[in-house]
Amino acid sequence: MAPTDVVNEFIARICRMDVDAACELVTDDVEYDNVPMGKNYGPQGIKDILGAMSGGVDDVEFIIHRQVADGGTVMNERTDRFTAGGTHFDLPVMGLFEVDDDGLITLWRDYFDMGIVNEMLAHFAD
Amino acid sequence: MAPTDVVNEFIARICRMDVDAACELVTDDVEYDNVPMGKNYGPQGIKDILGAMSGGVDDVEFIIHRQVADGGTVMNERTDRFTAGGTHFDLPVMGLFEVDDDGLITLWRDYFDMGIVNEMLAHFAD
Repeated sequence: MAPTDVVNEFIARICRMDVDAACELVTDDVEYDNVPMGKNYGPQGIKDILGAMSGGVDDVEFIIHRQVADGGTVMNERTDRFTAGGTHFDLPVMGLFEVDDDGLITLWRDYFDMGIVNEMLAHFAD
Repeated sequence: MAPTDVVNEFIARICRMDVDAACELVTDDVEYDNVPMGKNYGPQGIKDILGAMSGGVDDVEFIIHRQVADGGTVMNERTDRFTAGGTHFDLPVMGLFEVDDDGLITLWRDYFDMGIVNEMLAHFAD
């Protein structure tokens, strides 16, 4: 799979909320960096964060607006939509992925505003 | 100039703190969107924001870590470094540019954490 296809498939699996299947597409030492929150490592690091994020959520959708690749580097502009209790919350994100020659993701770094995430958490806690 | 070259030259002019020269590379209706802050339009919109940002600053440097282009779309991962009074503050950013067939920027959208910007403003206000 080309790096763009790997990223598309990874995101598709996350949106099915099948994080285990998504993590088949990452290296054992993958870096998962949510810039305003900090870095986590390895498939378990991804599972911990996404598990916590999706705990109270019924549905996750990553809407990709633009995606550009060069070599193993893939960047995209997204709206990450989290739905719970019939309402949804949209998080504007730019993300960066590095895919190695084996078609595995070595780096996933997302840039977003922590204030919007905190609004979302408060929204869903109501 | 290729879209990547336009973006590189635009950033070079900003880092010379010559916003007027930078704005020669944008369209009259350019959209300048700082995602957690909001949108501004036109060269004057850029001048207003960058003028306010660089008002108390001695030096601006956009350090580009990665940059990827496809057609007129250019995305980059940067550290925007603002220096004042001998200290600097680093803002992690992902940016998106659209360049038209005339080599002019029609869209500049930056994703970053507003909390870090607020820290920077407080830092420089001390």
